[in-house]
Amino acid sequence: MAEEETVEAEEKDLIEILEPSSGPIDLTRYVDYVRDPAAGAIATFEGTTRDTFEGKRVVELRYEAYVPMATRRLAAVCAEARAAWPVLRVAVAHRLGTVGVGEASVFVAASAVHRAEAMEACRYVIDEVKASVPIWKKEVYENGEVWKENREFLERREAAVGPAQERKKAACCCGSKVRVDEESTGGMI
Amino acid sequence: MAEEETVEAEEKDLIEILEPSSGPIDLTRYVDYVRDPAAGAIATFEGTTRDTFEGKRVVELRYEAYVPMATRRLAAVCAEARAAWPVLRVAVAHRLGTVGVGEASVFVAASAVHRAEAMEACRYVIDEVKASVPIWKKEVYENGEVWKENREFLERREAAVGPAQERKKAACCCGSKVRVDEESTGGMI
Repeated sequence: MAEEETVEAEEKDLIEILEPSSGPIDLTRYVDYVRDPAAGAIATFEGTTRDTFEGKRVVELRYEAYVPMATRRLAAVCAEARAAWPVLRVAVAHRLGTVGVGEASVFVAASAVHRAEAMEACRYVIDEVKASVPIWKKEVYENGEVWKENREFLERREAAVGPAQERKKAACCCGSKVRVDEESTGGMI
Repeated sequence: MAEEETVEAEEKDLIEILEPSSGPIDLTRYVDYVRDPAAGAIATFEGTTRDTFEGKRVVELRYEAYVPMATRRLAAVCAEARAAWPVLRVAVAHRLGTVGVGEASVFVAASAVHRAEAMEACRYVIDEVKASVPIWKKEVYENGEVWKENREFLERREAAVGPAQERKKAACCCGSKVRVDEESTGGMI
């Protein structure tokens, strides 16, 4: 689950899921990747570990992914952005393993001729990364830790199965996805 | 007009107008500036010289500014963003002088607890930089060059004066702002 995987997707997208030993994300690598003589705009988004969540002190975040599935979904997200906006290049990097406070866990860069297109495509990609890419996050607090999915990921799945079947389907499909350790503070999902 | 000016504005905004000799914008300087333990998100925008404008081959762009006025307006833009969104830190850099194809002329970085806030504040700042900060751009083509303001800058000023007074006021206030060299391709504004 922790191997590094680099995908040169179609149409100039770069997708990298970075192994725990890879260290901080090198932002310039991805910005330079999307740089293009035809581009007038490069928009980026960096998701960083913040020190507080719902009043609890966060020590670090830890990420795991089923890399082939996450990579495929990331490639699909980039293709969706490309279909919706005339972007020139897109790059996405997501770290696995431990990400300390202030460090980036995910980075998106998109270039386009005009700025609105670059910014909107970048926003689409990060929104979809949060909502639909199977990457798990463990929040490590001073007094415990909890594995969790993004709220948006849960909302998307719940919306897909509908209210009536929600509990049953959710119980079915996330048994292997959401892990709450015994020392967890609980109730976080 | 070409001196470097650095402003540490109120509330953790960094504003830099970079002299022609300063070379490419160091993106990591501004991203690191807005990095904050409380931030979950950093959004950036980079405006780059593109190789084509309205079918003409662009060789480079050249920027000039009345630095004290541009700096004051940039500080006001950051304050406006801060008033509208709960951003943590904002940084803006704009180069003066020659900016080659593919290089950044302007860079904005904004951090916030949540990503929507960071991205919307970043977008506001770059939109306002284009629309309301007095920085002049000369487009240098293969067969000529032209000084121009951003279209948005002109639209904003025209909207402010109203259709009836538009021509007279525009003639009055931009005599010293828009310069079209004799070798210009003309008709670009």
